[in-house]
Order: sequence, then structure tokens, then C-alpha cells
Amino acid sequence: MAPSSSPLLTSESGEKYANVKWEELGFSLTPTDYMYVSKCRQGESFSDGKIVPYGDISITPCSPILNYGQGLFEGLKAYRTEDDRIRVFRPEQNALRMQTGAERLCMTPPSTEKFVEAVKQTVLANKKWVPPAGKGTLYIRPLLIGSGAILGVAPAPEYTFLIYVSPVGDYHKVSSGLNLKVDHKYHRAHYGGTGGVKSCTNYAPVVKSLVEAKSSGFSDVLFLDAATGRNIEEVSACNIFIVRGNIVSTPPTSGTILPGITRKSISELARDIGYQVQERDVSIDELLEAEEAFCTGTAVVVKAVESVTFHEKKVKYRTGEGALSTKLHSMLTSIQMGLVEDTKGWMVEI
Amino acid sequence: MAPSSSPLLTSESGEKYANVKWEELGFSLTPTDYMYVSKCRQGESFSDGKIVPYGDISITPCSPILNYGQGLFEGLKAYRTEDDRIRVFRPEQNALRMQTGAERLCMTPPSTEKFVEAVKQTVLANKKWVPPAGKGTLYIRPLLIGSGAILGVAPAPEYTFLIYVSPVGDYHKVSSGLNLKVDHKYHRAHYGGTGGVKSCTNYAPVVKSLVEAKSSGFSDVLFLDAATGRNIEEVSACNIFIVRGNIVSTPPTSGTILPGITRKSISELARDIGYQVQERDVSIDELLEAEEAFCTGTAVVVKAVESVTFHEKKVKYRTGEGALSTKLHSMLTSIQMGLVEDTKGWMVEI
Repeated sequence: MAPSSSPLLTSESGEKYANVKWEELGFSLTPTDYMYVSKCRQGESFSDGKIVPYGDISITPCSPILNYGQGLFEGLKAYRTEDDRIRVFRPEQNALRMQTGAERLCMTPPSTEKFVEAVKQTVLANKKWVPPAGKGTLYIRPLLIGSGAILGVAPAPEYTFLIYVSPVGDYHKVSSGLNLKVDHKYHRAHYGGTGGVKSCTNYAPVVKSLVEAKSSGFSDVLFLDAATGRNIEEVSACNIFIVRGNIVSTPPTSGTILPGITRKSISELARDIGYQVQERDVSIDELLEAEEAFCTGTAVVVKAVESVTFHEKKVKYRTGEGALSTKLHSMLTSIQMGLVEDTKGWMVEI
Repeated sequence: MAPSSSPLLTSESGEKYANVKWEELGFSLTPTDYMYVSKCRQGESFSDGKIVPYGDISITPCSPILNYGQGLFEGLKAYRTEDDRIRVFRPEQNALRMQTGAERLCMTPPSTEKFVEAVKQTVLANKKWVPPAGKGTLYIRPLLIGSGAILGVAPAPEYTFLIYVSPVGDYHKVSSGLNLKVDHKYHRAHYGGTGGVKSCTNYAPVVKSLVEAKSSGFSDVLFLDAATGRNIEEVSACNIFIVRGNIVSTPPTSGTILPGITRKSISELARDIGYQVQERDVSIDELLEAEEAFCTGTAVVVKAVESVTFHEKKVKYRTGEGALSTKLHSMLTSIQMGLVEDTKGWMVEI
């Protein structure tokens, strides 16, 4: 874009920060100034999108996203460092995951280059909404939706790639750790389904279980596999790990588990400090006997599990200072916030 | 609405029919003049909606329908009789199914009364788009979508109930019967999921299988149950029945099968003419040994299955004049088109 028409001027010429009470941020929507929108015919390539004022989009009522769930989302974050640089965590990983999801849902995705460039543009346009260092992050939500008109069940003739952002604080309001309820009625995913990609279709179906659990005082829900009901899979919107001695285990990404980018990064960090990380089926019995359990995800980061309740049984886990999750949380956020050197090349400067 | 502002005048004062080549209708979108839109806060009641010009809707990018698949759809049809009455088939059944789905997805649905009234208004406003008797039907698509803004996975704070319509002809272009491919890789639904309600989340996940099957020359895909892979469940967007002797069997609606309204109606008609109808697990082996198989659904109506291909095995079935599906198709469409008396009270006059 020519400087004269760039919305970045608005951001850069104005105040350094938006009028937000940073201390009060939770994981809820704070609308910002701009969003990114790009459209593409099925099978063609996304050309350069546009930064436009944040607001409602216009879409045909007979689009597959409204009728048939043909949509993918991503979630990543931008961090402000103490010395006022703004950086994004592994955006190319989100781009690749969107491409895998698009293949599964017969959608046309943006290239990795276009995706990362769009993320950068969106963050830059909303620079004053990136919280001060240590006060939160700018949550970035890329969407790929089937937006063209079609009546029957089929791929959309047109796709929209859109990115909006919101400054956020903690996903869960609990300080010590999550109190999870194991769901023995609903399942999240099945083999031959879409559990392994970030399809919108994986989320509305778990809301009922989540609402029921929250109304009983739980923080979140842990789902078991649909095939046997014996192995743990995922929490409603994050991955889970268990720890026993020197071994850290997490369910494998064989089709029903979302290949989390935080999951992958935390596995690497755990190996770096001498833990053996196993990706394998983890039974509910193993979870109940573990020393520690924790969740990972872009929204939750790394969060200790304080307790798991399965039927009438409630088991407590190690949390706090001595917990591995505390160590891993610190290692990851130190990289993200620029407190230690990013030797892995995970951070992308805006 | 006051007559002075009623869009119905446009329709009624103009030509009797829209400019459509009725003979060429397939199951694709033909945009019409009007649609119905109504909004409602979570947990409140839908008030009277509005008939508005058909066109794009405006929606926030952070609505659960765009991000998390929080949406339900319905499908029903309006028929024009030889004596020019316009009637809809069992709309209250769609209303009830939408309510069941809304309960599963934590949405706020319209009441049965509001739903049926909205369907009537939408059809009336688009009266000239209802094909001449015998030339097709007006397909009616009610949508209930989570349209309010929210960042995390949770029920939407606002819902939109929308109805659009399109004149349609046959769903499948084949005359004799469907050639189905049995999918042994992808599954449609799992216990504890949403297969039993008309959630948008059941459809995008089957598109890949459907596209692959169609590219190999098949009409559609038949899915097996995710738990065992041994029982037949549904075709991508319709129910399936098998016939052997005097027994007609179809998979039970125990959570993974859509409770089709055509399915229910056809079961009743089959019983009326002396068949025993069983709702029970039907194995793939039974299907391969059946004398006849057929699909039912609002879009497909009743359609004979000509062949089923499972791995390398292809089995052919009775179709045409001597087939039960031909008889049932005739019985059902005679009621729908007003060729016989509607003794069951299925048709609702507009």
C-alpha cells in the first residue's frame, strides 16, 4: 500500500497505546481498529488482501460457512518486548496447519508467505492494541471460510481469508491450576473425522459439555477417544500432557488430536531439559496415576492441571513452584517475551 | 405487515411466474426476490422477523458461526398443485428438529409457531418462484446461526434465524438410481457427537469423501459407523433403507443418524402397504445381500440405489417399475403434489 493510503499512519501518528485497562484483560473480545480481508476463487491463489476498518463482513446466506461448516481458524499471538519490539510466535506453523486443514475440507488456503505477511500487516495496523510488555498479548485470529454461494453440499466457489485481533489476558481465571472434568458422554473427534485439523466443526459440538462442566464449577472438560472411551484426547481447546518421573506423555496426532504449535514447542523445550517426551495413547488410568498434568495451547499457553474428576473420583496433581509445567511455562514465555535469546528462531519480528 | 409495505404485493402484482427455465432446473441455487431474517438475544424469544430483499447478510467476524461452527440448517419444500395451491410438507417437523439441534449446540431456537409462520411468509413472498406443478419444487432453507460477537469457545450472545429459498429440480442427475461408494476411510459421525442433529458441522467434513467419489464416477458416498466400521449409517446428505422380502430396514436414530422427515414419512407409508419396517443396526454385509436399497431426504425425495461398491466389490439392486422405492416415491410425491388426498395431514397450505 502507498503510505498515503496506509491505515498504519493512523496507528503510528496517534497515541502509542489504545485506551484499554490492560490490568483487567481476560480472554474476551476487545474490538480493535483494523482487520485484514482477502478473497480468492476456488483453486486460484490469494492475491494481496486489504487492511480495512474492523467491522461486520458481508456474506451470502448460501455460503458453505453458514450452511455446512466449511471453515478453519487459527490462533496465534503477538508480544511486546520490554524494549518495545513487537514479535509473533511461529506464524509459519499456523500457515502450514491452515493448509493441512484446507486440504481436508477441500478449501483453497493462502500460501505460507501470504499468511505470514497478512499476520504482520494486521498486527502492525493494530500496533497500539498490543499490550505493554508483561500485561498481556495481542491474540490474532486468522479465519479461512467458504464464502461463495452454493446450494448443495460441495466446496465453496470462493474463499475469504480474514484476520482480526484482540488484546487478551489469561484464558482461564484460575491462578493455581485447572480443575478438569472428564467427559464420559460427549466425544470431541473420531477417526476419519476432522479432529486433527483446526476446523470450526470441532468446536460448537463441545460447547454443551463445556457449559455443563463450568456450571458445576469446573474450569474445562477433558474428552476421551470416541473409539474406546479409554484414552484421553484433548481439553475443549487445548492439548494435554502428563508427567511421571522423567517421562512426559501426550496423545499422538493420529487424526483426532489437534497438532498444537504450543504442544510441539513445549515438547521440544521438555526434551531440551532432559525429559523423555512420548507421543502415544495415554489411558485415563494413567492420567489418574500421573504426578502432574498440564495443558498447552495458544490461548492457555502452559497451564497446570490442579485436579481431574472422572465420574466420582477426583485426583489432585502437583502444581506451583516444583511443577514441570511452571518451568516450561517460564521457558516458553521468556522466549516469547524476549527475556531470553530466541535460539530456536521461533519469533518473527513485525 | 401492513399491505402498503408488504413485499408480497410485488410478487402478486407482477407476473405469475419468475423468469426461470423450469425444464432445466437441477439442485443448484437460483436466487429469488426475498428472504426472512429474525434476530434474538441468547435465551430470549424470537420476535417477528422481516421479509427483506434477498442478498448478503452482515455479520461480525467473531461470531461463533464463522469461527466455531455454531449453526443448524433445515431443508423443506413447497409444492404447487395442479389447481395452483401452494403447500409445504410437514414444516412443524423441521421446527422441532431445529429445536433439538439448538439444545445440542446451546443455541436459542424459534418456536414451532414462529418457524412455521416464517416459512409461510418466505414462500408467499417468493410465490412466483414456486415451479409450476410437476416441474420442480421451491426448496426452503432455514438457518439458525450463532451471530453475536464472542472470542472464546462459548454460546453466541445473539442468534439469527434466516430463511432463503430456491426453485430446484432433481438432486441427482441420474435417472435409474444412485451408484454409491462405501467409504472405508472417512466417517460422518460418532456417538457423543452431533450426527443426530442437523448441525452444519456434519457436512463440510464429508465434502472430501464426496468429491473423491464423484471424481471416480459415483453418485454419492455411504458412510459406515465410526465405532465398528461394520454398520451402514448415512449417505452424505440422506438416509438409507434396505429391502429384503417384506422387511424394510434402516439404521436407528441413536445419535449418529439424522432423523430424516422423509425417512419417517416413508417408514409410515411402507407400513401402510404392509411392509414391516425395522429401525436397527444394518451391517454392510446385509446391505450387500439386500434385494433393494434406496435413499430418502428432502433434497433427494426417494431415490433407488442402483449399485453399491465396497472395496472392489460392486453389487446391483432392483430399481424401476418393480421396486418398492418406485412405489414409495409415487405414494409420497402424490401426497406432496396434491394428486391424492392428504389423509395424514402432512401438507400445510400457504
